[in-house]
Amino acid sequence: MNASPLARPFPAMPAIAGVGLRVARARYKAWDRCDLTFVTLAEGTSVAGVLTNSRCPSPEVEWCRQALVLGQARALVVNAGNSNAFTGHRGRAAVEAIAARTASAIGCVPSDVFVASTGVIGVPLPIDKAEAGLDAAFAAEPCGWEDAAATIMTTDTFAKGAVTTAVVDGRTVTLAGIIKGSGMIAPDMATMLGFIFTDAAVDPAFLQRAMTGANAQSFSCITVDGDTSTSDTVLAFATGAAGNAPLVDDDSDGADAFRAALADLCHQLAVLVVRDGEGATKLIEVQVTGADSDRSAHRIAMSIANSPLVKTAVAGEDANWGRVVMAVGKAGEPAERDRLSIRFGNTLVARDGLAVEGYDEAPVTAHLKGQEVEIGVDLGIGEGEATVWTCDLTHGYISINADYRS
Amino acid sequence: MNASPLARPFPAMPAIAGVGLRVARARYKAWDRCDLTFVTLAEGTSVAGVLTNSRCPSPEVEWCRQALVLGQARALVVNAGNSNAFTGHRGRAAVEAIAARTASAIGCVPSDVFVASTGVIGVPLPIDKAEAGLDAAFAAEPCGWEDAAATIMTTDTFAKGAVTTAVVDGRTVTLAGIIKGSGMIAPDMATMLGFIFTDAAVDPAFLQRAMTGANAQSFSCITVDGDTSTSDTVLAFATGAAGNAPLVDDDSDGADAFRAALADLCHQLAVLVVRDGEGATKLIEVQVTGADSDRSAHRIAMSIANSPLVKTAVAGEDANWGRVVMAVGKAGEPAERDRLSIRFGNTLVARDGLAVEGYDEAPVTAHLKGQEVEIGVDLGIGEGEATVWTCDLTHGYISINADYRS
Repeated sequence: MNASPLARPFPAMPAIAGVGLRVARARYKAWDRCDLTFVTLAEGTSVAGVLTNSRCPSPEVEWCRQALVLGQARALVVNAGNSNAFTGHRGRAAVEAIAARTASAIGCVPSDVFVASTGVIGVPLPIDKAEAGLDAAFAAEPCGWEDAAATIMTTDTFAKGAVTTAVVDGRTVTLAGIIKGSGMIAPDMATMLGFIFTDAAVDPAFLQRAMTGANAQSFSCITVDGDTSTSDTVLAFATGAAGNAPLVDDDSDGADAFRAALADLCHQLAVLVVRDGEGATKLIEVQVTGADSDRSAHRIAMSIANSPLVKTAVAGEDANWGRVVMAVGKAGEPAERDRLSIRFGNTLVARDGLAVEGYDEAPVTAHLKGQEVEIGVDLGIGEGEATVWTCDLTHGYISINADYRS
Repeated sequence: MNASPLARPFPAMPAIAGVGLRVARARYKAWDRCDLTFVTLAEGTSVAGVLTNSRCPSPEVEWCRQALVLGQARALVVNAGNSNAFTGHRGRAAVEAIAARTASAIGCVPSDVFVASTGVIGVPLPIDKAEAGLDAAFAAEPCGWEDAAATIMTTDTFAKGAVTTAVVDGRTVTLAGIIKGSGMIAPDMATMLGFIFTDAAVDPAFLQRAMTGANAQSFSCITVDGDTSTSDTVLAFATGAAGNAPLVDDDSDGADAFRAALADLCHQLAVLVVRDGEGATKLIEVQVTGADSDRSAHRIAMSIANSPLVKTAVAGEDANWGRVVMAVGKAGEPAERDRLSIRFGNTLVARDGLAVEGYDEAPVTAHLKGQEVEIGVDLGIGEGEATVWTCDLTHGYISINADYRS
């Protein structure tokens, strides 16, 4: 599989004190690549996370939901090639076996071990392969971020990571994240699998609030195909190795800076997922303003971003604003046809419910030929606004998904 | 454009007393085909209808919504090639001009004239072309159903009509319908353009109740691409020429038979629209049972029917039930993973939240190779049920919509 035309090179990412990365071959599929990622976390590491709202979640998601309540983490295990979703008690048994074996190897309790899996649905994760893979990982040399990011991939076409820093309590802390996902992407409070690591000392409750806030503006604002995975998981781990006075609430020194850095990192990671959307050739940013409320703006933006007709029009480099009107109209949110304005890039093509007569088509055409397309919609009825990101819908998406066998 | 592989031959349809059909060339686009349909209706014709719930409807939809309140009709004008949607006061002026000219020609009031348009959004319907087309239609010889059904087409690949009968008050009445639509099909209480004619005498209020009921089980249960048109319109006209005692309420002689016949006709027409879904190669029936309520079952069924991953799996003839689980999970409706069962055709592939071990794949494969695919989902938690119809998602859909220029 060639890399997405929207791929980005993997960034230089420093080690995070307190975080150890290792990968191994569990051979969950008939492939010769690493597919098990094992991350050790220093004692005292805080954890927070957002998980899929699917009513049919994987046992991994249920496990993480329970373990997150305790707020502490010592290890993370990620399996690629088998999502273990919809596998009943045998799937649950596999998660428990992984947590137990890992806890025993590093000397912690099983609830300190977080587990995530991605891949085919409906096949119980083979415990023997998981255990052999874990044993190999325990014995492996540490690796870098790019190897870990590559090991969690499935249909992804490039390894995805991002890094940022913040000054907290007079110290520079680093936040690093890796993420995977390219189909079944319409996160409902979370996305496929994303993992964020920081050396900052952060109280779990504060970390959770910051993560929930960052998620609302990042992973919850992307869609590839409107399909929400059963396994969506984003976890944030804070080792505390930076030695700052722990962030506990909004008054803590550096709370705002940390929150902003986390939001920035989540945004970077979320957009990378869209850049690897199945079959994507264009990254689309949909900006909705003037809506009845932010929530209403978000729903309208997602209605546009999930519309197959809008997405195929962008693929065809066609400034088909009529399809944008259609998507606004079907969202079921307050809208007044005769106050609606639409732009592609910086060019207004419709205003007050009418085509802008004689607008200059040249900049619109040039904008649509680029890899990054911006669609702006102003409802003209309020102050609500939202931005979401998606990709175009192409023959590539059909080829990938009509040919992919379960 | 070749006809859809799922196309059906146009049925033999008798004339309906009180209904006159004529077509003409308004030349709304640069084509040499009839694109204006003019239908005369006998004095005393009742009318009922269902219209799009889009917040950005066309002026035609607004016109019909107002005229339906009066319950009487003398003419119908349908324009193909230009939907006149999102055209502000100029679009409204075109509708008023059409109604006025038609009313003057046949001697009725403008509110007796129903107008529907389909095609590109955002270009005001040219009044001069409409008027010239109308004048040609007024002077034309009457035509048959197939010509009328072909004249209302846009990207449709075959003319679509259906007919049925019912015995009402001792007389056999006939119900005939024509319909168009192949993209932007996710009717929200109605679908693209559908027109139903009967010689039965039916009180408008009863006709509206019967139409609303039939719609809920037909047009509201189909989806091609999840995109809801700004122009969706289904109108039912009853001329009364059959001479039966008018149907006025549930106690009228033949009320049940008429309602059943109307529901049957709407179902036939709705499925024809799915058979002409853009790029469709397979007709998919999604049956959901055991849900919390019928409404919940409908939402789950639509979540499955609108899932690009389910639709591409069917295109690839892949019994990927994991994607069905995903679509159930994202619907946001009550579901218990470990009570869920899924079948393709008559073969149960998952039961109680687990793959059925060693199920016979041969009949599943054979079923998926056919043109009509049935996906059954039992939630196992209640009595709610629903059936919806959709088509697969193929390269054909992308080609049609990425290449179609506004």
